[in-house]
Amino acid sequence: MTQTSDIRVAVSTVILTLRASAEEEPVLALPLVRRTREPFADRWALPGGWLTHTESPVDAAARTLGETTGLAPSYLEQLYAFGAVDRSPTRVVSLVYWALLRQDDVVAQSAAHLASGRAPENVQWFDIDALPPLAFDHAKIIEYALWRLRNKVGYSRVAHGFLPAEFTLADLREAYEAILGKHLDPANFRRQVESTGNLLPTDRFRTGSHRPARLYRYNTDVELADRGPLGSEETSTR
Amino acid sequence: MTQTSDIRVAVSTVILTLRASAEEEPVLALPLVRRTREPFADRWALPGGWLTHTESPVDAAARTLGETTGLAPSYLEQLYAFGAVDRSPTRVVSLVYWALLRQDDVVAQSAAHLASGRAPENVQWFDIDALPPLAFDHAKIIEYALWRLRNKVGYSRVAHGFLPAEFTLADLREAYEAILGKHLDPANFRRQVESTGNLLPTDRFRTGSHRPARLYRYNTDVELADRGPLGSEETSTR
Repeated sequence: MTQTSDIRVAVSTVILTLRASAEEEPVLALPLVRRTREPFADRWALPGGWLTHTESPVDAAARTLGETTGLAPSYLEQLYAFGAVDRSPTRVVSLVYWALLRQDDVVAQSAAHLASGRAPENVQWFDIDALPPLAFDHAKIIEYALWRLRNKVGYSRVAHGFLPAEFTLADLREAYEAILGKHLDPANFRRQVESTGNLLPTDRFRTGSHRPARLYRYNTDVELADRGPLGSEETSTR
Repeated sequence: MTQTSDIRVAVSTVILTLRASAEEEPVLALPLVRRTREPFADRWALPGGWLTHTESPVDAAARTLGETTGLAPSYLEQLYAFGAVDRSPTRVVSLVYWALLRQDDVVAQSAAHLASGRAPENVQWFDIDALPPLAFDHAKIIEYALWRLRNKVGYSRVAHGFLPAEFTLADLREAYEAILGKHLDPANFRRQVESTGNLLPTDRFRTGSHRPARLYRYNTDVELADRGPLGSEETSTR
């Protein structure tokens, strides 16, 4: 079995906030760090660094974020592990964490960091619609973070993976019941799934020992939330 | 900066299916592989192996899954990267992928693998409520996969991270609008969020240049979906 000692592990963080813009409508913004060494010297990058032998990935992410920006979110969520073969000149798997921070916390934590005298000068906040050229695959990482954020809004279609192309509402409810480990009220369930717009009724029915039940299919105009914008390199081609 | 060449990267897969039980109600099940070497020889483990220098993590996950089980899901989603310092006798970060497979696909792919003569004898499917003792932190990984599955059902509260403890529906809508990059109809938005049960009205109002707007807070009886069951070791303590 091939050893992997030539693959290194790094951590990065995507910190998103909503800040007031000139037009008074809030816009998304995030902090970047200007690199001081090769590769990608002078390019902007996400805050981050190497995972060390004695710390967990999330601790390494919190440490490197704090050292550069002074930010200390109460919780860092793991966003994704980026490991494409060609994402860096050497082979690096990057474990990326993210957090949403309220603007008032950003202001307070940044001010405290500046006052401490330990703040590096190469940190800057950018609106997400005005990002500079970025090091490594960090533009893709930010794009992915924004996609995840957008997809957190809305109704998931997780049971789709268990079901054939056409299914009854009872099939769907049973799948959810197995997932949730509890019974669901059929009338409430029907109302909820019908209100999402994710299901399309067909003109076919399942017949059998019970009264005929209408078959439904998923609305394929709604993109599957879990596939994401990463493209083929992050997707199995098997 | 500390080098990380003493940290190795592995991949594992969690494949979930719904299969009919004796009681006719479907139950969740997944395939495990009995280990043939130390550490944890003879224990059951998730299908997996080492990430090699020339393949992406998802390709390594698909390869090792196919070699052991013959399963070839059309899509493997990244579940999580597990990297706790003490999760293995040596330092190993495991990138875990998962997929939901329909039972008929499981049957067809397993049969083809058996017919090929390449199928190892140490693979077995287990109902998730009757798992054997597992190697490494694989019991925790499966628990996490089930948690993710359950939390895919329901309405997310992602905007919570941007907002103070109490906020108006207009605040909330503006946060969503910034996230989604589009305008939302206020009346529809109000109906949708009120129907989720995630928001509780307070008896306080924001006053100002417009007519008074009621303040809301999140219903803290509803657990924050993104924190998960991983406990303190995966959570920043900063």
